[in-house]
Amino acid sequence: MSDGKKSDGKIRRPRAETPKGFRDYFGAEVTERRAMLEAITAVYHRYGFDPLETSAVETVEALGKFLPDVDRPNEGVFGWQDGEDADWLALRYDLTAPLARVAAQFRNDLPSPYRRYAFGPVWRNEKPGPGRFRQFYQCDADTVGTASVAADAEICAMLSDALEVVGIPRGDYVVKVNNRKVLNGVMEVAGVLDPTEPERFAAERGIVLRAIDKIDRLGPDGVRALLGEGRKDESGDFTKGAGLSAEQAEVVMGFVGASEAVREKLLADVGTYPKEADYLRRGAGNQGTDPSASDIGQRESYGSVWNAVVLDYLSELVGKSKIGDEGVSELRMISELLDAQGYGPDRIVIDPGVVRGLGYYTGPVYEAELTFEILDEKGRKRQFGSVAGGGRYDDLVKRFTGQSVPATGVSIGVDRLLAALHAKGRITGDTTGPVVVTVMDRDRMADYMGMVADLRNAGIRAEVYLGNPKNFGNQLKYADKRQSPIAVIQGGNEAAAGTVILKDLILGAQIAQNATLEEWKDRPAQLEIPRGDLVAEVRKMLAQELLAQ
Amino acid sequence: MSDGKKSDGKIRRPRAETPKGFRDYFGAEVTERRAMLEAITAVYHRYGFDPLETSAVETVEALGKFLPDVDRPNEGVFGWQDGEDADWLALRYDLTAPLARVAAQFRNDLPSPYRRYAFGPVWRNEKPGPGRFRQFYQCDADTVGTASVAADAEICAMLSDALEVVGIPRGDYVVKVNNRKVLNGVMEVAGVLDPTEPERFAAERGIVLRAIDKIDRLGPDGVRALLGEGRKDESGDFTKGAGLSAEQAEVVMGFVGASEAVREKLLADVGTYPKEADYLRRGAGNQGTDPSASDIGQRESYGSVWNAVVLDYLSELVGKSKIGDEGVSELRMISELLDAQGYGPDRIVIDPGVVRGLGYYTGPVYEAELTFEILDEKGRKRQFGSVAGGGRYDDLVKRFTGQSVPATGVSIGVDRLLAALHAKGRITGDTTGPVVVTVMDRDRMADYMGMVADLRNAGIRAEVYLGNPKNFGNQLKYADKRQSPIAVIQGGNEAAAGTVILKDLILGAQIAQNATLEEWKDRPAQLEIPRGDLVAEVRKMLAQELLAQ
Repeated sequence: MSDGKKSDGKIRRPRAETPKGFRDYFGAEVTERRAMLEAITAVYHRYGFDPLETSAVETVEALGKFLPDVDRPNEGVFGWQDGEDADWLALRYDLTAPLARVAAQFRNDLPSPYRRYAFGPVWRNEKPGPGRFRQFYQCDADTVGTASVAADAEICAMLSDALEVVGIPRGDYVVKVNNRKVLNGVMEVAGVLDPTEPERFAAERGIVLRAIDKIDRLGPDGVRALLGEGRKDESGDFTKGAGLSAEQAEVVMGFVGASEAVREKLLADVGTYPKEADYLRRGAGNQGTDPSASDIGQRESYGSVWNAVVLDYLSELVGKSKIGDEGVSELRMISELLDAQGYGPDRIVIDPGVVRGLGYYTGPVYEAELTFEILDEKGRKRQFGSVAGGGRYDDLVKRFTGQSVPATGVSIGVDRLLAALHAKGRITGDTTGPVVVTVMDRDRMADYMGMVADLRNAGIRAEVYLGNPKNFGNQLKYADKRQSPIAVIQGGNEAAAGTVILKDLILGAQIAQNATLEEWKDRPAQLEIPRGDLVAEVRKMLAQELLAQ
Repeated sequence: MSDGKKSDGKIRRPRAETPKGFRDYFGAEVTERRAMLEAITAVYHRYGFDPLETSAVETVEALGKFLPDVDRPNEGVFGWQDGEDADWLALRYDLTAPLARVAAQFRNDLPSPYRRYAFGPVWRNEKPGPGRFRQFYQCDADTVGTASVAADAEICAMLSDALEVVGIPRGDYVVKVNNRKVLNGVMEVAGVLDPTEPERFAAERGIVLRAIDKIDRLGPDGVRALLGEGRKDESGDFTKGAGLSAEQAEVVMGFVGASEAVREKLLADVGTYPKEADYLRRGAGNQGTDPSASDIGQRESYGSVWNAVVLDYLSELVGKSKIGDEGVSELRMISELLDAQGYGPDRIVIDPGVVRGLGYYTGPVYEAELTFEILDEKGRKRQFGSVAGGGRYDDLVKRFTGQSVPATGVSIGVDRLLAALHAKGRITGDTTGPVVVTVMDRDRMADYMGMVADLRNAGIRAEVYLGNPKNFGNQLKYADKRQSPIAVIQGGNEAAAGTVILKDLILGAQIAQNATLEEWKDRPAQLEIPRGDLVAEVRKMLAQELLAQ
């Protein structure tokens, strides 16, 4: 024990606190997440993915992003040195870096392509804030060892299935697909990328990428500023920009605003797109809350041309760029493959607005957004937003082996998706507590333990009250706190008569609130039964309670 | 990316390796553990325990055992400082310390008693060795806030149920129960504990405890040496002993050898214990491998007096020690409560040989041992041994609050129990791979994706081969490696005819091995069917494969 007296003679007790940015999950919070993960991984399984569980700890070297030869690991991960002159170790910050390590380490044994799913906590050494935690769950699926965009299309379809299976109805989400190669093509046209010297402008491209990813938060003017000289935020801090000229910036902004441009085109050309224009005019283009069935039908018809128009628009935008053209072709193929599987644009659409923040993506990127509205902390309506994202990362395994191993995959933000299900009232977890056998006479504990043994052997959740039995009121308060359906009572009189009393706590609570005398008559909240009928009568009462709900 | 050129111009690639002492779990290894944990936690749930999931990271202060004010955390945990002048954090080394922190932190909100179960990885910063890992799973259940030994009895019963539900048959395990208070009584008699000054002899008692815990490894002479001056091991290293006199040591050894003494007593007094003596004479007293049903019956009858005789023996041993007497009374009560629930000594026995190594236990301790034999790494037969243990720890919550909060609980070593199930051939996980749709014509990828979509929508696990389709042999090798039951093939001819070919890979493998021509005739390993019948015919073939197994 580390209890010790301080020099002033006072006992210094340890604080009973979670570390900052960490939290505990109780009861239903645990079972709800478990049920959701089971549903998602059943979809992954059906798609042919096999489970993998890596350990929480990796070498900093294998995790990448962080250099092993610095004195102290960078911010971002929780790291430590494994003894003097030994490796730096760290907690994984995602499930993709460990997968890349596994794919390299076991490349001679694993099937190729290697299709794996994984879920579990990941850790980020970030400044904790309200609602921001330093440990959270991810649930990933990846295909390693295939360059075919069929793999990307498949993962988008699977993501769509996973969202529906956990309870997000069609129409309340959209999977948006884009391609980094298109963005590269646009940057080539703007002169921020030189295909003959791919290493040039690397810093500028990074700034462009991060600027676009912030469009929702900063708006077009903010992004424009970051593409140019830079931007001063509200606090006065200055962020250096990519240094693009006004003309260059406009090319990039054309890409960022592609969705809006396509929207305007459809609205302007009513002759060619009458249904689509009508749909957009009604303001339904942004996947509003709970669209009616006919809305979904219209969106599908609208969406089926949407992809084609977007692709034509992007094709024009990338001009003669080879990489850009490749990107548009890949998106076209993804669109066709999804159509063949029955995943229309009511579920998955091409959307140039999605770029994803991570640096390692090399091709298609995708993101699942929940389109229904919730109230934010200030009471304003806003869309729920992103709950999953991913893309193609063709160079992560190459880091280790030097050989190209193309890969693509998705990560679902488990805690955010759970929060969405709660917001939609889609979670109705079973919070029923155990039958509580009360203790009237502490010398007859063996009798009470015999009762719970009978109940448990019959598959009924049950326990004896194990606190101090002196105050019977405390026992009933305990049963109440546990959301117990039934209390079993046997005092001296009942024991002598060979009976027990069953107290229907759910009916009792209802009667206390609002039930009429009539209801009470039909179904007493308390009844005395022979001890031998305990299991049968408890089972009957539980069934009645279920029926009455 | 952290790829960088070294000063010698060579590219320095990160090593694709798990850190020393860590490992990855693939496919069935993951699902088998998950299934076992589901079965165990279903038992915990039935007993009225609620789930709790704490984060992997705790403050070193809350974990206890380790002082936060040292320069570097002690060995034993993986720890780091959360920024300058900030808390030392560490990965949890068990699930009990975090529970004690939760029970203190949320004491005003949690029901009392608080019954919780938890499972997950824990981490130990130990020297890695063969089969010794630094991350492993535990699955715990604890009752916090009750001094009643009914709680201890209940957890022993639950442990017994949990072992049986995962596939350890009755007769192949035994839950052994002891009480630290009895040991304290024995030490009082031996003069190694002074009830008026409980802090005296603390170091000596610690050595005695650890010495007894090593009886299986060191034998009686080794323990005797550690109780006295000390012991030199094979490598010549000297371990200081508790410094007991020969007389004192003999008192303690009487406790350690209690089981053997009781055994001898029963054998010697054939007149009083004819059945028991006969049973012991046949050498079945140590719960040998696979006892027949009649053996189990005999052990039960033998065991029913066993507890009574052991308790009388212990009562004599602790003499007038108040604490020792209390310990014997508690064991007697546990024995009676277990009898009342139908848990006879064929499952749970009083055994003074169990002390558990952990320092924080204050009352009953218990351990589940698997009694069947396996071959060790040197080919020698030995009992499988302990897979779970626990006990009463009345002071862990008090560390935080200063108020006494009695608690008791068990921890199952998940990986060891899984290994035991493997050793007994009790695990028959489903390793069936997906139906693999092969790619004969890469331009018709959309058709192949349409086929898997149909299969998946019908609930059938399926995928398109996403590797390079050039070499068809590689596609079948892939299907083989994935343990795929069926390959679907559609070349140009079939596409023109509107058909697909189904290849029964399981039958194919059987025919290749040993089937006769007759069998082949009845059930072709390959057939051509209309594309429209794909789902129905795949379903039929999967059913045939199941039947043929």
